[in-house]
Amino acid sequence: MTAFASKIKETALLVEDALNAFLSQTDGPLGRVVNAMRHSALDGGKRLRPFLVIAVADMFEAPRVRSVRAGCAVEMIHCYSLIHDDLPAMDDSDLRRGRPSVHKEFDEATAILAGDALLTQAFEILAESETHPSAEVRVALALELARASGKAGMVGGQMIDIYAEQKNFDLDGIRQLQELKTGALIRVSTLMGGIIAEASEAEIAALTAYAEDLGLAFQIVDDLLDAFGDVEALGKPVGQDADMDKATFVKLLGAEGARDQAKELVESAQARLDGFGQRAEALKGAATFVFERKN
Amino acid sequence: MTAFASKIKETALLVEDALNAFLSQTDGPLGRVVNAMRHSALDGGKRLRPFLVIAVADMFEAPRVRSVRAGCAVEMIHCYSLIHDDLPAMDDSDLRRGRPSVHKEFDEATAILAGDALLTQAFEILAESETHPSAEVRVALALELARASGKAGMVGGQMIDIYAEQKNFDLDGIRQLQELKTGALIRVSTLMGGIIAEASEAEIAALTAYAEDLGLAFQIVDDLLDAFGDVEALGKPVGQDADMDKATFVKLLGAEGARDQAKELVESAQARLDGFGQRAEALKGAATFVFERKN
Repeated sequence: MTAFASKIKETALLVEDALNAFLSQTDGPLGRVVNAMRHSALDGGKRLRPFLVIAVADMFEAPRVRSVRAGCAVEMIHCYSLIHDDLPAMDDSDLRRGRPSVHKEFDEATAILAGDALLTQAFEILAESETHPSAEVRVALALELARASGKAGMVGGQMIDIYAEQKNFDLDGIRQLQELKTGALIRVSTLMGGIIAEASEAEIAALTAYAEDLGLAFQIVDDLLDAFGDVEALGKPVGQDADMDKATFVKLLGAEGARDQAKELVESAQARLDGFGQRAEALKGAATFVFERKN
Repeated sequence: MTAFASKIKETALLVEDALNAFLSQTDGPLGRVVNAMRHSALDGGKRLRPFLVIAVADMFEAPRVRSVRAGCAVEMIHCYSLIHDDLPAMDDSDLRRGRPSVHKEFDEATAILAGDALLTQAFEILAESETHPSAEVRVALALELARASGKAGMVGGQMIDIYAEQKNFDLDGIRQLQELKTGALIRVSTLMGGIIAEASEAEIAALTAYAEDLGLAFQIVDDLLDAFGDVEALGKPVGQDADMDKATFVKLLGAEGARDQAKELVESAQARLDGFGQRAEALKGAATFVFERKN
């Protein structure tokens, strides 16, 4: 196993344990919504976003308890967005990572409420004093996460994804959509790591530049996986973009062109971190991982 | 117009103006989600929850800009919950205050995302420095609002409302359900007013006791209006609880008994404020208003 592979596995386990504790089971109807939250949040995902929070905070030797908590908050936002996106009124997906999506395993009402509860709990976790002794830091984390995930961020991207005439999008249009829909949450993950570690403005600027390249590479690889990926490795159907005649990076650049662009972005992302020297190995590994991932 | 009536009207206008500014219109798909948020948030409601935030903060002469912003955050949570509750998979309501509900005026996907965006923006507003110069205060506001509206509060109450065998509920069962579903947000409104004004623990305890009585009275009156109210004044259908054979305060206590209990709670709520003297007139008026309201 590479150093990166063992590091992302180690942090994923920490995140999984913390999420398990945040979502402790109870009886009755309340237990039903918690179980739906658990179904989504405890599915053994890659935990890329919490990894970014933790890996950045690790560079500055910030206590793990803080970065794991902030990572859980980002992951809860990510999970809520998947639950709501899978709903019949949205993408109508029955499968998520090879398992029934929340509204299939439970029902639509429970899925809506489980998403709402995860979204709310993300801010509860950030606001709690265990996340950081400084209220300034905690409130900055909440502010950045809200901005990245609300109408000017992830939710806005989802609206564009559903309603824009995407088949007419050019490269700039797709890029702008993806910066909101997936980029904003990846970007805020490294930003939150920097805030928790009380990194300098210059350090945060370098980390943000890295995250912006990384987010775009992530999305191009997503398009490549949708076009050429393996259903079993992905745990969800492929070929959906082409079926819906969506403009994608693959459609506009071709397979080769998309792959080249993703590779360039990954190399650019890694170069942004040169000033950090050895300390940035984990983040550089994450960029390679994003490029090489099969799901 | 009574002093109370003109005060709640004045604060509702302030809140409406602030919500209008928070939800400024744009073009394209993003404009669509903002318009859906506006449809819900700018409907000329009573703004009882922001009124409570503002009236409490006023008692301590806290600047209005702060309490109006915090009031908008609570109102956004209230609005998001109405949008999601009205969805076909939940209460399936086509009407809200006499107008089409958001998923009827727009569609289900837009309604889900507009709710998500309002929920997220509530925390964004609280985290912004304009809400209060002290980060400790801002993070305390976010923490309390998250606790009141998440799985251990409003969302949990909605789950119980949908899934519990409510026809078998006794008075304690209904009371517990209502404390979560509607009480938690009313309670946190006065609490947030106290936090913004940096009120003492004893003052906050008295305000919280007031809000708990008020919240329960509010719900009993809701049951009375559902059983005996005027469709036109309410702007929504009546008789739904009886049709669904729900256990309600009216069913368990009778109309007379429910009215008596609501009146007792309102008087008890008002008595909790005696220590504040004249300063508590607006909050006492709110309790009378909750008892006498027709919608």
